[in-house]
This record gives sequence, C-alpha cells and structure tokens, in this order.
Amino acid sequence: MQAILQQIQSEAQSLFGKGQVASYIPALAQVPPRQFGMAVARVDGRTYEVGAAHTPFSLQSITKLFAFVLALKLVGDELWLRVGREPSGAAFNSMVQLETEKGIPRNPFINAGALVITDILTTRYAHLDIALLGALRRLTDDANLSWNARIAKSERDTAHRNMAMAYFMKSYGNLVNPPELVLDNYCRQCAIEMNCAQLAQATLFLANQGRDISKDGHPGEQFLSADAARRVNALLLTCGAYDAAGDFAYRTGLPIKTGVGGGIVAVVPGKATVAVWAPELDGKGNSVLGGFALERLGELVDWEAGV
Amino acid sequence: MQAILQQIQSEAQSLFGKGQVASYIPALAQVPPRQFGMAVARVDGRTYEVGAAHTPFSLQSITKLFAFVLALKLVGDELWLRVGREPSGAAFNSMVQLETEKGIPRNPFINAGALVITDILTTRYAHLDIALLGALRRLTDDANLSWNARIAKSERDTAHRNMAMAYFMKSYGNLVNPPELVLDNYCRQCAIEMNCAQLAQATLFLANQGRDISKDGHPGEQFLSADAARRVNALLLTCGAYDAAGDFAYRTGLPIKTGVGGGIVAVVPGKATVAVWAPELDGKGNSVLGGFALERLGELVDWEAGV
Amino acid sequence: MQAILQQIQSEAQSLFGKGQVASYIPALAQVPPRQFGMAVARVDGRTYEVGAAHTPFSLQSITKLFAFVLALKLVGDELWLRVGREPSGAAFNSMVQLETEKGIPRNPFINAGALVITDILTTRYAHLDIALLGALRRLTDDANLSWNARIAKSERDTAHRNMAMAYFMKSYGNLVNPPELVLDNYCRQCAIEMNCAQLAQATLFLANQGRDISKDGHPGEQFLSADAARRVNALLLTCGAYDAAGDFAYRTGLPIKTGVGGGIVAVVPGKATVAVWAPELDGKGNSVLGGFALERLGELVDWEAGV
Amino acid sequence: MQAILQQIQSEAQSLFGKGQVASYIPALAQVPPRQFGMAVARVDGRTYEVGAAHTPFSLQSITKLFAFVLALKLVGDELWLRVGREPSGAAFNSMVQLETEKGIPRNPFINAGALVITDILTTRYAHLDIALLGALRRLTDDANLSWNARIAKSERDTAHRNMAMAYFMKSYGNLVNPPELVLDNYCRQCAIEMNCAQLAQATLFLANQGRDISKDGHPGEQFLSADAARRVNALLLTCGAYDAAGDFAYRTGLPIKTGVGGGIVAVVPGKATVAVWAPELDGKGNSVLGGFALERLGELVDWEAGV
Repeated sequence: MQAILQQIQSEAQSLFGKGQVASYIPALAQVPPRQFGMAVARVDGRTYEVGAAHTPFSLQSITKLFAFVLALKLVGDELWLRVGREPSGAAFNSMVQLETEKGIPRNPFINAGALVITDILTTRYAHLDIALLGALRRLTDDANLSWNARIAKSERDTAHRNMAMAYFMKSYGNLVNPPELVLDNYCRQCAIEMNCAQLAQATLFLANQGRDISKDGHPGEQFLSADAARRVNALLLTCGAYDAAGDFAYRTGLPIKTGVGGGIVAVVPGKATVAVWAPELDGKGNSVLGGFALERLGELVDWEAGV
Repeated sequence: MQAILQQIQSEAQSLFGKGQVASYIPALAQVPPRQFGMAVARVDGRTYEVGAAHTPFSLQSITKLFAFVLALKLVGDELWLRVGREPSGAAFNSMVQLETEKGIPRNPFINAGALVITDILTTRYAHLDIALLGALRRLTDDANLSWNARIAKSERDTAHRNMAMAYFMKSYGNLVNPPELVLDNYCRQCAIEMNCAQLAQATLFLANQGRDISKDGHPGEQFLSADAARRVNALLLTCGAYDAAGDFAYRTGLPIKTGVGGGIVAVVPGKATVAVWAPELDGKGNSVLGGFALERLGELVDWEAGV
Repeated sequence: MQAILQQIQSEAQSLFGKGQVASYIPALAQVPPRQFGMAVARVDGRTYEVGAAHTPFSLQSITKLFAFVLALKLVGDELWLRVGREPSGAAFNSMVQLETEKGIPRNPFINAGALVITDILTTRYAHLDIALLGALRRLTDDANLSWNARIAKSERDTAHRNMAMAYFMKSYGNLVNPPELVLDNYCRQCAIEMNCAQLAQATLFLANQGRDISKDGHPGEQFLSADAARRVNALLLTCGAYDAAGDFAYRTGLPIKTGVGGGIVAVVPGKATVAVWAPELDGKGNSVLGGFALERLGELVDWEAGV
Repeated sequence: MQAILQQIQSEAQSLFGKGQVASYIPALAQVPPRQFGMAVARVDGRTYEVGAAHTPFSLQSITKLFAFVLALKLVGDELWLRVGREPSGAAFNSMVQLETEKGIPRNPFINAGALVITDILTTRYAHLDIALLGALRRLTDDANLSWNARIAKSERDTAHRNMAMAYFMKSYGNLVNPPELVLDNYCRQCAIEMNCAQLAQATLFLANQGRDISKDGHPGEQFLSADAARRVNALLLTCGAYDAAGDFAYRTGLPIKTGVGGGIVAVVPGKATVAVWAPELDGKGNSVLGGFALERLGELVDWEAGV
C-alpha cells in the first residue's frame, strides 16, 4: 500500500498547474497551490501516509458530512422533512431548484441543504462549533482541533449568496434561526482545519459499520448504527461531489465528500477510508489531483484481496 | 365622463368577493375588501372622481414607477447597465431568471429590479423616503403625503424573499449598499399612501409629454423629457403588471402600473391618467375590480373624440 | 417625410456589417447582406419609399402576424385556450417555458405559439398557403404574391427544433394535426415573400381601426373590428420582437413584428404603417438597420402634427 | 434465503393498491395490478424464486441497462461525448435540462439518453432488436425471448414526447438517424419481455466482475471487463431510478434499474442479482412493492455473511 501511495504521489505531480485554488474566498486564495498529501486508514488499524499528510487544510464542504451525521443522530428521519436526498443536477449554489421545490433543498450536501443542517444544529446547541468540534476532537483524538478564525471571517464577509439562500428558505419557513446566526455558525464550521491523516481517521466509522475504531486502549464508540452508516455512504456516493457526483461515482465507485479547500475523503465500506488533499480545483470545485489519486488507487488496489 | 365612471362603479359591484386582499403582509391583510374608488385627470386640467377616490391606500408596487422615474432622472441611460427592460415571463418575485441572467433583473418593476432602483436612490440621497416623498408631494401638491410606519414595519419583518434577492444580487455585485439598508428604504417606499385623485394627479406628467400641469397658478414643471416620458410609458405597457403585463396590455392597450394594495394607475398618452383602487386581488396580484374598470373605460370612452 | 426617409437611409449605411444574415436556414444565408429598403403607408393613402423598397424578401416570422389575425377572425377568443398572450422572457424557440406551462405557448409569436396558430388554420383550410395567400393578395392587391418553394424546402429540411416543439405540444394534446403536416404548412407560410411597399400596405388595417383602405376605386374592407385591431397592436407591442420586445417597445414605442428575413413592420395607430428591410440581424434575430431606422423615424417624425 | 423471500412476499401483500399501473401506454394499462414475483441469482449459481417469478412482463426502461452495456462495448468511452453520467435531478422525460445542456442528455438512463444509445445501436446494427435480443437470448439461455409487438405499437403510437426529444437532440446534431427510425427501434426495445428469473440471470455478469456464469456446461463469457462492470454499477446506483435514484440508493444502497412495467433489477456486487416485479407504480414511475421488497431484503440478508 505504501508503495502504491508513493507511485500515485509521483504520477500526480504532472497535474500541478491543471487546476486553480479556490478564489471566491480571499483567505483561501492565498494557499500555495502545489501541495499534495494522502492518507489511508484501514479498519484493522493500519495507516499509510504520503506527502503533506500532516499539513492542516480548510475542510470546507467536507464538514457538511460530519454536520449531517450529527444532525441525523439528533433528529433521525425527521431530518428528511426539511431536506431531500436526491442528487441536485445543478451547481452547488444554484437557487433554481430551491424555487422549483419550494425551499426544500435536494440533499444535505449542496449549500442550501447544509444551511438547513446547520440550522438544526444551531437550534439544539448553544455553541455550534464546540458541539461539532467536540465530536471531531473525539473522532480524531486531537483536543486542539479548531477552526481558522481568519478564514471564517473572510468567508462570512463574502457570504452574500449563502445569505440569499438562507433568506430564501426562511421565506418558505424552512429556516428556524435568524439567517445571520446560521451563517455565522456555517462559516465557522466550514473553516475547521484538519490534515489528511486526521480526516481519514475521523471518517473511519463510515467504513466500519458505524463504529469508531479503538484508540489508545479505548474501545471504539458506535458512532452511528451500521444501518445508518450504510445509508450515509449511499448518500455520499450519489451526492458527495456537487454536480460531479455521477462522474466521481463512475470513476471511483466510492462514497466521497469533497471540499473547495482541495480535500476529498473517500470510504471503502468494510475496508478503509482515504483522505487526499491538493488545493488546485477543477471547474466544478473538486480537487484535480485528489480525483486523480482516488481513481488511480481504485485501479491499483484490490481491496477484496486485502492488499 | 362622470356618467361613465358611475356606470363602471355600478357594474364593478358584482365583482366584489371574486378576489382576495393581499395576505402576505399582515398589515395589508386587514384592509376591508369591498371598496372601490376611481379618478380621471385630464391633461387640460379637468378631473373626475367616483366612489372612494379620496380614501388613502398603500401604493406598494406603484411606487416602483415613481422611484424608477427618479432614478432615470438621476443616472440616465446608465441605469440600463444594472437592470433590463424586458418583460419577465415569470412571477414578480422569481429568482430563476435572476440566476440565469447573473444578477441583472429583467426590468425595474419586478421586485429585484425595484431593489436595484432603490439601491441607486439610496446611494444618492441621505434620506430616501424624503427624496421620493419630496417629489410626490410636489406632484400631488400635498405636503402631508407620507408613508405608513405600521405597514412599512410589517413589510420589513416579513421581507425574507426580498432580502434573498438583495443578497443574491449583491453576490453578483449588483447592489452597492447593505441589503438591510436597501430593504429598510424599500419597505418605507412601498408603504407610501395616496388616494386615487392624488395618484391620477401625480402621474399626469406621463400623459403630458413629461410636463406636470399647472396648479394653483404655478406653471407645470417639465418633470421628464417628452422622449423619456414616451419610453417610460412603453415600459409600463410591457412590464407594468407583473406576469400579467401582456394580458393587461391586450385588454386595455394602456401603460399601467399595479400594486398589491389594490391600486392601478393607467396613462392615456396625450389625454389623461386614470387611477383606480379596489383591494381584492386576482391570482397574479392585480386588482380584480381595477382591471375590470380600466377595460370597461377603454370600451366606453373614445379618447380621440375627446369625450 | 420623403426627406426624413432619405436621411435615415443615409445614416443607416454606417451600420452595414454590424449584423449577420440568418444562417440557420441555408437558403436564407445566401441573401446579399448590404441591402436596405423602407416604405411608409399613411391611412390617408399617401405612401413614401426609399432604397430597396420593391425588392421582395422572405417574410418569415412576420407571417405569424397575418396567420394570427386570420386565426383570430376564425375562432375568436377561443384561440386563447390554446395559446397565451404574455411576453415570453426567453428565446423564440425555447422549450423550457413550454414544459413549465404544460404545452401552452406563451404567445402566438414565439415559434411554438405560431405552430398552434398554423394548426388551427390547417384544421380549417384544405390548402393553408392558399387561404393565407388569398388574404395577403387581397391586402396587397397583388395576385402574384407567393411563397418561395426553395426556401420552404430548405426550412423544412432543417426544422428539427420546430418538429420537437410540435411533437412536444402534441404530447400535451395541444396540436390537432400530424406534426409533419403542420410543419409543411408552417414552412411554406414562413417562405412567403413581399417587398416593403407591399408589407406596409398589407398591415395598414392595423393602423386604421381594422379597416383596409380603399384601392383602385374599391372601398376598404373592415378586415378586423376596431377593438380587435387595438388588441392585436397591444400584443405586437408586448410580444412582437422575440425576447427583445421590451427593448423595441422602449426604443420605438410602436407595435412591431420582426422576421429573420430582416424585415420589420411597425404600426403607428391612427396614422400609418412602416415597413423596413435589411437582412443583417443582431444576436436576437432582429434586423440591425431596421431597428435603427424605426428608432430614428420616431425621433424625426411628429406623427401627431401630421408631418 | 428462500424463507426470507417468502416473508417479503407475505409482507408485500399489504401494499397492493398503494400504486397504479402505468397508464400512459394503453397496452400496459391492461396488466392486472395485484401481481408480485421475485428471483435471486447468486454468482455461485444458486437461484431462489417466489411468487410470479416466471410470469413474463414488459421490461421497458430496464432494457436501457442492456442497450447501454451493448453500446459501451461497441464504442467505449467515446459514448461519453454524446451523453453525460450525472444524475438528472428532473423527471425522466424533462426537456429543460436537455435545453440547458445543449442536447447532451445527462445520463444514458433518462429517456433522452436512452434514445442516443438506441441511435448508436441503430447506426451499427441493421436489425436493432435482433442484436439486442441476441445478447439477451445468450445471457438468459432462452432462444424464444422476444418483444411484444402489440405493446411496441401502442408505445410507438403515443411516443409524441419521445419524438419531441429525438427531434430536439437532432437539432443539436446529437442524433444521427432519422427520429422516426430511432423511435421504431426504441419502442421495440422497450417492449422486450422477460420474467424475474431470467432478468436476474441476464444481469448476473454485473455482480460477477463482468463475467457471465457458466450454464449447461458452457463456461461463462467475459461479457464486460471487470472495471467496466464496476463503473456500470456505479452509474446504476446514481442514475438507475429516474428522479428517485438518490432515494433508492439511500434505502437500498444497491445499483438498480427500474422500469414502468413494474420491474426492478438490483445488483449486489460480488454476490448476486435480485429481480422483482409488481406492476403498481409510485408517483415517480417505480414499482411500489418492488422498492419495498429490495429494502426489506437489505435489512434481512447479510450478504457478507453469505446467508
């Protein structure tokens, strides 16, 4: 596995310069483009890393996965009254479908849907970031995990379109809290930082029938039921990569979640998780090298055979 | 003419109950439904009135006409860089076209376009309502004309969808001021009150080649150039009645502007203006009795013959 | 008036090359671009011409006006059950609104609406082109008026998109005849040819309260009721220029109908009609020089003063 | 497994009457509603059946799966120049996206995409139905497999909307053959009939890394590469159930293909295929009992454990 990761890293170099760092958030635009890190965490506890696997990056939309899981734990299937679970067939921040479907976002991973999830968490927790951070700190076993205040502020200052969506949903009664408050929490959430090794670790419960694996002598927590974990994976497969979900599913066959920070996390159910980070994005907001790395990994590894 | 107005008033009674008072703004929903007033102002100074022609009502979208004229006087054709002049083919508060056309509203009379107009006025005037009120007080010769604070507040409290549009346009760079400030001004503007007699008077410059008519011995002011007045009338004809503009044009052939307060003002170029008010609305937000009255007036009056 | 037309012709020369001849129909693409003709017909019988006012050109969408008037005479207001009268807010051959509005085209002048009109005429007349040609021959007093078979065939061979619309409406039950037959008739209709002088003449009833003017000693026929003529003019004003209707209305203030053959006909109610032809089109399919000529005419002529 | 199938059959009875037999094709509307059959085929050759597992039914959209696989074998990745692989986010016969995306259907399983696939097969094979039938006869080992001429004709007679789509794509150059011919072939293809046992058998190569299993002493054919089979499964998961693909994926986690004949086939990669048939459909055109049966099967069977 280590050799495979090194081969992928080596091949991926040739793609530097093919994408562009996210520019719509000023603070993100300053991230140096030519970086690449990758980490694999297996359900048996073995881990593999290559490149900048310990450099923290902005999770951005990848946090939508964790926020969604938290909300699903909180309110269960009631959640589906306020958000759908169909692929969107449109850009991640489109308002057209939201109008057609009267304020019910298509799924929890487009921006509008993620705002509803944050609204659910905002209603329940006094301090949203603490609640989400608490869960992520437990999952990564890192008490220092936090959000980047400069990026959160940069994001909040330019969040006009997300504000538009929040107010639009409020006009349909599908937002409980004031849009300003929901956006404050949402921008902090998006600004949470992790490195690849941590991200692979934090997601491992999705590959392990909902159970976090044991760490430092502590037995793994049943973070989510096995059944719920299977469903979350299906949702990641159909909706995890914005409007390129079908293409990613076709190329990798794996449940994934991408973020405009350049990170991607993928789940190999029953086997492992893979986190990859490279800040240059394609036209749909997904990491160019990240997509390549996952596709190559699928070709080079025979997960069944346990390599 | 007086006889014709009385005949129309009499016929219109049978339509009471066919529409519904605007319900989306709580304060408007309390207006008693079965009311009807109508006034005609001729360019030669003669005026005619019937029914509740002196009862003040909430102008609502009719103010978009005056705000637009004011903005056109201020910035001229530059205005068309920020707003189109095509009929919208969609509901007055739809966001679909706004996304397709990248934040440029189709015309100044749909809500999004009116917000851009208010934004232009907000940039130029310290006190928007005073500026607009100032013009309307001059045009009506009534120094007490004002806006209804209770309705403005009611409107502001429920302006989620307009806030969504304002933020959406801001995300495209087509809003200069903070959305909250633009909405404050917009809701005050919409809450301006007039009666039919005043409304016919205030609009007379559009029937009179841009020139206000003389009042109390003062000669009429050239409020707008003759050419600009002709163009404003064309715009009212194609875009003045939300998504029913074509239907109104077909039925009446006249430039008009409607409001959800139940008012409609129509221009008979070279001849007169007609203001009608009846708070019950049809499904597209236009006054049921108002539309009927204008259609009947067109059938009963031969404007060419000077009757 | 003659001097004004000559001035406009002279000014318009500078616009040659600013547009492009319609290319989607091969036979139309062969028309030499740098041509310009214009004709004015007054209700008092006086006529004025300049440039290529006697060169026949392909009427194309301008025939939609005559076909619509014929259908309105045939079935009256029943027509509005199958087609709307609102501006479309979308390109002339868009299918999006047709789907949203379940097979009812927005107005009779977008392609889908014109196909419904042709379907109505197809049901009533054994030989559509003869019926329509018959009316046009009477209105122009030219027994040789006909359609260009080569252009009709060229149009029919490439009518995939119109066929798509016809089948789409048939799926909603809004097309009675087989799409193939409707398209045959539609393409012949579009290929009818006239020159500017004839076009101004043929449309004069719309400026003359529905009455054709006397010719060669015959008294004028009441082709349409005065009321219906007024309504047709309103419809031309709101819907006559595809997706640029609002812009044309704003610039000229006149009811008009344009065609991709480069022709435009405008109505000055109570006064005159104006036909102009110049085959170079702008991006919305309207004649560049034609639009300019009508706008200049509006600035130079004071129709009220009878110049 | 047999006990589980019987339990599901028993539970499913309570859902009879909750859906409606497809009504838009007259010949399909005559199928008796209260029927249910189910079959499981394992990659190790074991098979299980319950209910009407040997009653032939109209495959309808399920044939899109086989036609797509055939086209992919023929032209490989070139296929993706003419059709996308993203979920559609709209009804299976919507034209809106087709216009937005300029004649390139979103995926091969919505009607527009399936028409492109049939167009590809039509270009290559003189007798489309024979070519497709040939493959299906080999996969099912049944030389009598055929299409129902009465249903094909019924479908062809009412195929206005599919004709509209075919012509629409032709207008964008994305249809090579005449729409009439493509529709003839498409309607025959959709009218192919199979029973559940055969359908499970015919799809088994998708569960078996692309290799058909051995039958009657013949070794299994490598019908598709293992890699291609994995990708087809991913596509079925994201796009196999019209606009309910996300919901099906969430509920079952399995690649599936549904048809308005009431059939559904599901793939359990590496393990088995499941075919279920019950003609009553939900509002999105998917079998009510079929969806329930697959969801229950997922809950009752532990595929990993090999039960």
